[in-house]
Amino acid sequence: MPSTENNMKKIAFLGIPGSFSFIAAKKYFGNDVSLTGQKTVKNVFSTLIQRQTQLGVVPIENSTTGSILETYDQLMENNLQICGEVRLKIHHNLLVLEKNVNLKDVFKCYSHPQGIIQCQKFFENHTWIEPETVGDTATAAQMLASLKSRNAIAIASGQTAKIYGLQVLTKNIEDNKNNFTRFAVIRLEKNQSGNKATIAFSVKHIPGSLFKAIKPYADLGLNLTKIESRPIFGKSWEYIFFIDFEIGTDLTKFMEMIKRMRKVTDTVTILGLYDKGKIYET
Amino acid sequence: MPSTENNMKKIAFLGIPGSFSFIAAKKYFGNDVSLTGQKTVKNVFSTLIQRQTQLGVVPIENSTTGSILETYDQLMENNLQICGEVRLKIHHNLLVLEKNVNLKDVFKCYSHPQGIIQCQKFFENHTWIEPETVGDTATAAQMLASLKSRNAIAIASGQTAKIYGLQVLTKNIEDNKNNFTRFAVIRLEKNQSGNKATIAFSVKHIPGSLFKAIKPYADLGLNLTKIESRPIFGKSWEYIFFIDFEIGTDLTKFMEMIKRMRKVTDTVTILGLYDKGKIYET
Repeated sequence: MPSTENNMKKIAFLGIPGSFSFIAAKKYFGNDVSLTGQKTVKNVFSTLIQRQTQLGVVPIENSTTGSILETYDQLMENNLQICGEVRLKIHHNLLVLEKNVNLKDVFKCYSHPQGIIQCQKFFENHTWIEPETVGDTATAAQMLASLKSRNAIAIASGQTAKIYGLQVLTKNIEDNKNNFTRFAVIRLEKNQSGNKATIAFSVKHIPGSLFKAIKPYADLGLNLTKIESRPIFGKSWEYIFFIDFEIGTDLTKFMEMIKRMRKVTDTVTILGLYDKGKIYET
Repeated sequence: MPSTENNMKKIAFLGIPGSFSFIAAKKYFGNDVSLTGQKTVKNVFSTLIQRQTQLGVVPIENSTTGSILETYDQLMENNLQICGEVRLKIHHNLLVLEKNVNLKDVFKCYSHPQGIIQCQKFFENHTWIEPETVGDTATAAQMLASLKSRNAIAIASGQTAKIYGLQVLTKNIEDNKNNFTRFAVIRLEKNQSGNKATIAFSVKHIPGSLFKAIKPYADLGLNLTKIESRPIFGKSWEYIFFIDFEIGTDLTKFMEMIKRMRKVTDTVTILGLYDKGKIYET
């Protein structure tokens, strides 16, 4: 008797249940999918290449730490495609084992290094609580749950609290309220439509080469929403640029831009054509 | 009686002795300085603002993870200046308590998450050794030294091994041999000369605005070596761009470019004028 799970889409995500990639996958795909956590961005790509999964969800940009270059590297190396985007507004919550835990009894706080950096005011006001960094916020929650300690807390999202049976003591303790992470939904096949595109191009290191390369987008009136150069350290005279555009619904302008760019660059690679992602709260 | 130490320059760096910022500071300043480690990039800046130190050394770009946006944020917020640059070629070494430690007896390896990600082949060939992430590679070495364990190892630099009395079992176990980190030397005062500059500028989110902003550098034949956009998430229609230029020895072209850029952008901020950094091995 076939179970419904066999018919479910298989999605790889970065981390363990409760990670931000997990939350992004849930927001994008809903509940009727089979999610499988992976230790590294590379492993998410591997499951797709080996066709163990049909789609993957990985972080691609963070408002605090910038682009996730590991994701760009994997896209370049494996020729996979971005087919969707999710934007999460990151909130940090104080998770405790039980609601009646008293912060005066707490001496340890687990979180991802960024979780700790982004909640400096909390640590300034609770100097007796020592931050301890772990790999990610979901692992911090998992650790607290398995330790069953009333002397420790974790900084993670509210959804993660639910997964590990923890309680939220204080919501939104982050210093900066404008903390976003963008996630890319990836797969092997290209999308045929979308209102946004991510491309990579390379130029020789000569004055004006970047300028010439982006002239076509300006001439055609397309909206650039992100640009980043990546020095190829082994080849000290070459650069890769990653660019995001909003391209509207008419693909002809975009294809014309790619055509013009190819004339003034060494290589142009389309990393994805997809719809701009909605913003979700965590 | 005044000690020589009182006359030494006081330099703040990120991390604990043996961190890559510590190594960068040693390479740049030599040994006749007084180095003081700080927990966060923000703390390095604070010691400068409070005039507890005269100079600071912080990471600004990494070939694996990209720009250190925390450093850019601090430069923008506090109006401090980059006055020098150090480029470190990052090597990862296997550190052990004593040379005769047998890897077959080892079950734990401490390192920074990037140290572990960048040495995947080692872990694939030694599957019984479990990686454990800590805040930075120097802390990994410090932990191993304090545990005095023959069943654990650390991944860190050779210089760090010396500081903590550890031995290097295997050199250069990193998968990618082109792993660089750039460090900024920072202080309160502006440099009056240099062959490289870092600037920030902001534009409204309208098609072609970036193109117009960088036209002056192309017209003047200056070498752009890095560009990165930073969305201002609170202001969804505005962007900050960070740009590095090689400007040669003649500052007039550079000043002319800044003048022209000011006409086509909202704001232009010079974050530093300095000499391009030498490359050192770690």
